[in-house]
Amino acid sequence: MSDFLSNKAKSIEPYTPGEQPKDKKYIKLNTNESPYPPSNAVKKIITESNFDDLRLYPDPNVSDLKKEISKFYNINEKNIFIGNGSDEILAFSFMAFFNKGDKIYYPNITYSFYSVYSKLFDLKEVQIPLKDDFTIDINDYKNLNSGIFIANPNAPTGLLLSLSQIEEIASTNKNHIIVIDEAYIDFGGESAYKLTEKYNNLLVIQTFSKSRALAGMRLGFAIGNEYLIQGLKNIKYSFNSYTINRLSILAGIEAMKDKAYFEESVNKVINTREKTKVILKELGFIVPDSKSNFLFISHKNKFAEDIYIKLREEGILVRYFKTRLIDNYIRVTIGTDEEMNIFIEKIKEIIK
Amino acid sequence: MSDFLSNKAKSIEPYTPGEQPKDKKYIKLNTNESPYPPSNAVKKIITESNFDDLRLYPDPNVSDLKKEISKFYNINEKNIFIGNGSDEILAFSFMAFFNKGDKIYYPNITYSFYSVYSKLFDLKEVQIPLKDDFTIDINDYKNLNSGIFIANPNAPTGLLLSLSQIEEIASTNKNHIIVIDEAYIDFGGESAYKLTEKYNNLLVIQTFSKSRALAGMRLGFAIGNEYLIQGLKNIKYSFNSYTINRLSILAGIEAMKDKAYFEESVNKVINTREKTKVILKELGFIVPDSKSNFLFISHKNKFAEDIYIKLREEGILVRYFKTRLIDNYIRVTIGTDEEMNIFIEKIKEIIK
Repeated sequence: MSDFLSNKAKSIEPYTPGEQPKDKKYIKLNTNESPYPPSNAVKKIITESNFDDLRLYPDPNVSDLKKEISKFYNINEKNIFIGNGSDEILAFSFMAFFNKGDKIYYPNITYSFYSVYSKLFDLKEVQIPLKDDFTIDINDYKNLNSGIFIANPNAPTGLLLSLSQIEEIASTNKNHIIVIDEAYIDFGGESAYKLTEKYNNLLVIQTFSKSRALAGMRLGFAIGNEYLIQGLKNIKYSFNSYTINRLSILAGIEAMKDKAYFEESVNKVINTREKTKVILKELGFIVPDSKSNFLFISHKNKFAEDIYIKLREEGILVRYFKTRLIDNYIRVTIGTDEEMNIFIEKIKEIIK
Repeated sequence: MSDFLSNKAKSIEPYTPGEQPKDKKYIKLNTNESPYPPSNAVKKIITESNFDDLRLYPDPNVSDLKKEISKFYNINEKNIFIGNGSDEILAFSFMAFFNKGDKIYYPNITYSFYSVYSKLFDLKEVQIPLKDDFTIDINDYKNLNSGIFIANPNAPTGLLLSLSQIEEIASTNKNHIIVIDEAYIDFGGESAYKLTEKYNNLLVIQTFSKSRALAGMRLGFAIGNEYLIQGLKNIKYSFNSYTINRLSILAGIEAMKDKAYFEESVNKVINTREKTKVILKELGFIVPDSKSNFLFISHKNKFAEDIYIKLREEGILVRYFKTRLIDNYIRVTIGTDEEMNIFIEKIKEIIK
């Protein structure tokens, strides 16, 4: 019998998304979703929309959502690309900015999907080690000889580079693409979108799945020089012309418009995060100074995997990566204050 | 200045989706959408759904929709793959079943996206000429030495292969993947999903964008042997874990459940198509015997491009491909009876 599958389909080890179990109701602190619902305006616009129009293809250019993003950031629509989640934009970026066999640089501890993409598209990944405290030494990223991907804040550490550090990387690699993956930037960082006008090698990617509470609707966007955006478009229109459905477009527009609600939700997450940091340190956890909507923590005398398993038994899901260097850490999404109180109570029992 | 874009992003000529103009209200007969709205149950389930849950990622496996499809076709869920439109599944198929440099066979006149995918993924396309009457000679597809893509009914001709003809192709190419793209099968053909149990080399792809009136929600599915489905999954989870949003899943479930409405809409389209065929023939058009929701027509003494342009001026959009062999044809989606009456009136004036 013939095999049918390509070498890639047979050999690749796919990214493993966080669990979405249906067996019982969990406190879900494992996939960095917002603990707060999306803006009420999302429900309103969708329920009042013309459902008959769902028979028609959506606008492949997603112009109406681009318009709202361009207003929010005061940038031009031609500098925006919209994708089906930031993952789709990352995948298109690997295709748009790299040829087979090219080198690609990123930290050895970061969003693990980058490594999957490198293998999928036959690139030579070069993983640059973080320092022992999980920080990025930006000197390691100056004057490299190929493109760079940086998650900022980094995942799963939550540690942030400043805008001036990002600028140093962009300015010392002017001939290579620098992709800044800002999935968590709204929780305490400063977006590098401001630098994209000055640096035509800089592409910034954001998502609606975290700070805008729309993980369920699959929306992400990129901001960059028009030429880079055209590259992404050429790939997208050669892959799937209509990746964004009509109702996701409506949801994204309202989430972008409702700035007050967005800021309120983000601030609540930040406050809860800072309170939780203090308590976890008092309980003997190592707590890197996350600027994201999660904490990456390790206990001085309890194994992370044991904590993960026990929390799961207690109905609390967190994320555990059985990966060298970080296998004694768990990643805990910031929930509501109530959820975090329960989490803390359970953690206290587990480490007792 | 460095270039940043990959060779592919620079050189590829993307697929051109049909126009979705916003300048005025057109009678839209250019992108093969359903002229009828989706089932009322779609609106009901979405407006009554829990919008707070949009903060959460969707089920990446899309199990609930698989369940409905498995009921509809009386097949196992493990033989189903769900994608963001059938185009996404086609793209994943090119990655899952072919290695760089492999040959891939399809008709010289067919869905033009296949050729774009071949270039995107560095395959050697072999275009097999249709006969002069645009029919496929299945003898050309026996005992080939690599995978085959067939749109059935074919696009943009609308011409159908019978189930036994598909079986002849599958049975004479047992060592190679055969992908049957059944975007239009519900309008008069017999789906080859029935053969997928017998032929483990056969993958059938369908869409919710035509007969199920949900082009705006982006849903497609594939049916095949579990091993082929696993290949698609390996690629999908290495590309974008969550390509189907929560509301599209709900919409798909209800569209699949409402079999009575589905059959009613499809039958209306078929009736309108058959009436339109007769009239167009009387008007001097060549009208291949389409079994899809569109007609591919050529007039004996008016240039197709002129007809296309004049119809557009009159507020009617049809599709015109400036492509060798078919550049004297226009593709006309079947609309409602009212829309087709207007179309016929305008056509009569144009060919006068």
